[in-house]
Amino acid sequence: MNFQSAINQLQTIKPNLHQEDFLLTWEKSEDDLKAILEIASILKTMREQNISPRVFDSGLAVSIFRDNSTRTRFSYASAANLLGLAVQDMDETKSQIAHGETVRETANMISFLSDFIGIRDDMYLGEGNKYMREVGAALDEGFAKKVLPSRPGIVNLQCDMDHPTQSMADLLHLKNHFGSLEALRGKKIVMSWAYSPSYGKPMSVPQGIIALMSRFGMNVELAYPEGYDLIPEIVELSQSNAIVSEGSFKISNSMEEAVKDADIVYPKSWAPFHIMQQRTELLKNRDTKGLQELEQDCLANNAKFKDWEYDEAKRKLTKNQDALYMHCLPADISGVSCKEGEVSSETFERYRIPTYQQAGYKPYIIAAMMFANKFEKPTEELANILEKNKNRIER
Amino acid sequence: MNFQSAINQLQTIKPNLHQEDFLLTWEKSEDDLKAILEIASILKTMREQNISPRVFDSGLAVSIFRDNSTRTRFSYASAANLLGLAVQDMDETKSQIAHGETVRETANMISFLSDFIGIRDDMYLGEGNKYMREVGAALDEGFAKKVLPSRPGIVNLQCDMDHPTQSMADLLHLKNHFGSLEALRGKKIVMSWAYSPSYGKPMSVPQGIIALMSRFGMNVELAYPEGYDLIPEIVELSQSNAIVSEGSFKISNSMEEAVKDADIVYPKSWAPFHIMQQRTELLKNRDTKGLQELEQDCLANNAKFKDWEYDEAKRKLTKNQDALYMHCLPADISGVSCKEGEVSSETFERYRIPTYQQAGYKPYIIAAMMFANKFEKPTEELANILEKNKNRIER
Amino acid sequence: MNFQSAINQLQTIKPNLHQEDFLLTWEKSEDDLKAILEIASILKTMREQNISPRVFDSGLAVSIFRDNSTRTRFSYASAANLLGLAVQDMDETKSQIAHGETVRETANMISFLSDFIGIRDDMYLGEGNKYMREVGAALDEGFAKKVLPSRPGIVNLQCDMDHPTQSMADLLHLKNHFGSLEALRGKKIVMSWAYSPSYGKPMSVPQGIIALMSRFGMNVELAYPEGYDLIPEIVELSQSNAIVSEGSFKISNSMEEAVKDADIVYPKSWAPFHIMQQRTELLKNRDTKGLQELEQDCLANNAKFKDWEYDEAKRKLTKNQDALYMHCLPADISGVSCKEGEVSSETFERYRIPTYQQAGYKPYIIAAMMFANKFEKPTEELANILEKNKNRIER
Repeated sequence: MNFQSAINQLQTIKPNLHQEDFLLTWEKSEDDLKAILEIASILKTMREQNISPRVFDSGLAVSIFRDNSTRTRFSYASAANLLGLAVQDMDETKSQIAHGETVRETANMISFLSDFIGIRDDMYLGEGNKYMREVGAALDEGFAKKVLPSRPGIVNLQCDMDHPTQSMADLLHLKNHFGSLEALRGKKIVMSWAYSPSYGKPMSVPQGIIALMSRFGMNVELAYPEGYDLIPEIVELSQSNAIVSEGSFKISNSMEEAVKDADIVYPKSWAPFHIMQQRTELLKNRDTKGLQELEQDCLANNAKFKDWEYDEAKRKLTKNQDALYMHCLPADISGVSCKEGEVSSETFERYRIPTYQQAGYKPYIIAAMMFANKFEKPTEELANILEKNKNRIER
Repeated sequence: MNFQSAINQLQTIKPNLHQEDFLLTWEKSEDDLKAILEIASILKTMREQNISPRVFDSGLAVSIFRDNSTRTRFSYASAANLLGLAVQDMDETKSQIAHGETVRETANMISFLSDFIGIRDDMYLGEGNKYMREVGAALDEGFAKKVLPSRPGIVNLQCDMDHPTQSMADLLHLKNHFGSLEALRGKKIVMSWAYSPSYGKPMSVPQGIIALMSRFGMNVELAYPEGYDLIPEIVELSQSNAIVSEGSFKISNSMEEAVKDADIVYPKSWAPFHIMQQRTELLKNRDTKGLQELEQDCLANNAKFKDWEYDEAKRKLTKNQDALYMHCLPADISGVSCKEGEVSSETFERYRIPTYQQAGYKPYIIAAMMFANKFEKPTEELANILEKNKNRIER
Repeated sequence: MNFQSAINQLQTIKPNLHQEDFLLTWEKSEDDLKAILEIASILKTMREQNISPRVFDSGLAVSIFRDNSTRTRFSYASAANLLGLAVQDMDETKSQIAHGETVRETANMISFLSDFIGIRDDMYLGEGNKYMREVGAALDEGFAKKVLPSRPGIVNLQCDMDHPTQSMADLLHLKNHFGSLEALRGKKIVMSWAYSPSYGKPMSVPQGIIALMSRFGMNVELAYPEGYDLIPEIVELSQSNAIVSEGSFKISNSMEEAVKDADIVYPKSWAPFHIMQQRTELLKNRDTKGLQELEQDCLANNAKFKDWEYDEAKRKLTKNQDALYMHCLPADISGVSCKEGEVSSETFERYRIPTYQQAGYKPYIIAAMMFANKFEKPTEELANILEKNKNRIER
């Protein structure tokens, strides 16, 4: 990377990210998204060249994980650390949905000296994103009433609707793989349901992928067995996006058909919308028996679609028999992490290293979201860092 | 804040805080307390003005929490981070009281490169503060015998007797609310028991409040239903304090009577002294059945005093119908966090933001305690920081 | 310490530690070991003289603990913090042995911005060290395939075979106690089994001690009741080491005989090799009943050897009745931490402070391992730090 040309490139973009939370990609302008990609790339190259982009001398980055996570947790910690912030975990019980005064108060109590709050809350349909906005409103009030010296930014680390740090990392991977955002135009990406022996996987990854990739002129095909729908509004949104971006959007019910001539395939399991709706109701009512029954039904239904495995035969149907395989990891690999799963071991192994590279963008995407939130003129600040040229490791 | 005048003010005070633990406010001189308030205010203003008071290039601040905590944990983490220290948690089982060699050894093992140990140990009457002193003695020995390169300071983050980081934050809130410490003279503050559906809340907050506020010429009234006594020695101490400071100290058994003409009301539940004594014995004997029975008895007795709720009617009895409401949070708010609780939702809402501001002083109080412990001449060090004028966030 | 002479001393050593993991002391050359000792000493003195050896402006030090730990955890955190790294814990379930793709993937996912991975994995015979190498191979691949910007170094924080940060800290303690490595030549060190009422203590400490101390011309005597063997290969290795270093190595079956004329005694319990073999099989098969039976058998057998307690009578048999007592802590002290244990309270108390000092070297040994891994020319980098002379605490 030539830093000067990257910074010149960034200079031409007019994002509106300063002091804005990053909750859903579809609330962000194309310039916002491009700015995040550019900043992430610059930060990544700085790190590789031993230039330290530490802009905070102190400060906390709070993390709230209502669901287990290794990858996103490390990505968030890495991003915070790179910029100079210390991570402080806020333990939240998984089973409880906080509202009202509890949220308002807690949001302020953890924010007196905090710069960011990263939240993963993907368990309840209709709740995760709402919770983030409730936290945001509390922070707005706290800042307005001078309780807080500044308004911490919120980073959505996965909710019921979107997984923007994942989808943006995926987009940066595609941009680099194909050479540019422009090069993605007309490329066929298949977001396909795939069989998994586990249950209740969130819909936020496929939703995030179709809603984001449809904005860059790609031919997006969403494939799933009948009944495995995603949230209807997000599917509609993706359709509209495709029209605006002059790409296309299609839904089909066969992985085999879908992957034909695909440039990119993203086979991943999820639990269907109507199951998630029922599950959320049962969880709210703490109906343990109902939840167990739903799980059994759901697993039994999944089992009908074991042929929704991405394997060598299907790979051979793709463009040049070599579509880029993507996964947010960990994948359910047949014969490796489970008996039968989302992808055959041979096919996975073929693209294993690229999936690691895909994951490697996430820390920088998060750091870029923080950076763009904090600095009104991120380009100038990046130029400052380059000028200072401080070593990350003493040399 | 004018930094120069604040520093001049601090210059006139002769505290004896260097290399001293902060365990109980009543062991500290008036100058000690004033110095903490001044340093905390200066650090808070520095942070607000983007001046970084980071004085440690590395170092650990150990935390030992024998009880759950979000507010104090974040306050401690924020204070440590502001000064440049990394927090390292020491997991302690809640149910076990360590003594003797275990304490001596552990205290040294966690301190080789540590600058502070913050301890919350409020579960057992007669134990928490004692434990902190045992840790302190072990650190003294370790330093004397050259096991440790320096003697880490201990910060009491709540014990069975006092909660000095809370009461000092509360005092700073009062000082700022009324304009000066001098302005508190003659003000009536009511520390009142209040009904709560939960059980076993520690006495350290009310004890900390009466023991501290009685030193500044305030008219302190402690109100509780008959039988809900605090530790007698601390009540006697508060009485003596009031005589020395030319304020007053009174005990009464009616919230309604107590709040009349009050300038400040602090309605908060606690478990009575005699219950805490029994509970400690039962806990030591691991008498699960006895503990359950005690809890039932205690809750049943609490329930007789549901009218000890601070509400609009009571507020209207206070000075100008507008006494400053205080709480260490979270409050048991009737109809919000519980059916019937310490405060009505209407009254709480009226003072909600001030309670957040009150809480916001705690990180700086802790940072000030650390700062004053570490630097023999804190005034000079603060002046140094101002002169350097390093940005917390790059600008 | 005279820094210049220490650095000159280090200059004469030709270690091969740059970008090498530290997994087993017996894979390291004598120069490697000496370099670690020298660097650790220099870092310790820097810290004592308020010179900050912070060489990282940011970066993560990952910790993976499959077994509980306070001492090693704090040592690792202290070392990382001293050099400027933030610790990020990777939670691993204790009962599960990960292999293959899980290890490969996880190793990469936690390493995008990490400089070190510290691993404690001592539960399963034949597994802990193997796991570390599997992680290392995954990191090698990740770095080679440009997934990772650099290859994080691995520090063995205790495995089934060795506990190198412990044994190296112990060696530094001996070096300082007796004045030099040369002074250790001909000294008699007794690594003795001792009775403990607990079960399943790992063999890595005694193995680490005999394998390391036998390299410095010491007369090493390993004493244990019949049947309490260590891993045979490591015992053989120690025998060979003794021949090469012109020391001696002897096995005996009486603590009383062994400690005669000893300069150093290290009485510590462990579970025998054949028990650990059985335990590993039972653990792999999740045979809970078998594990309980094995524990009972093992404890019953231990109980036959309660006279294997190091006490005043045995101490009086040692050189000048004052052999240096060593322990990795916590010791099972008779009448203190258990009814009957590894050492009498009177004897332990006599050497209590030296055991604390012994432990105090570990953070610096770990920091030295990190330092030597990261810098091709550690001597030059240490000289740089001295020249900069940055204060750890502002003065």
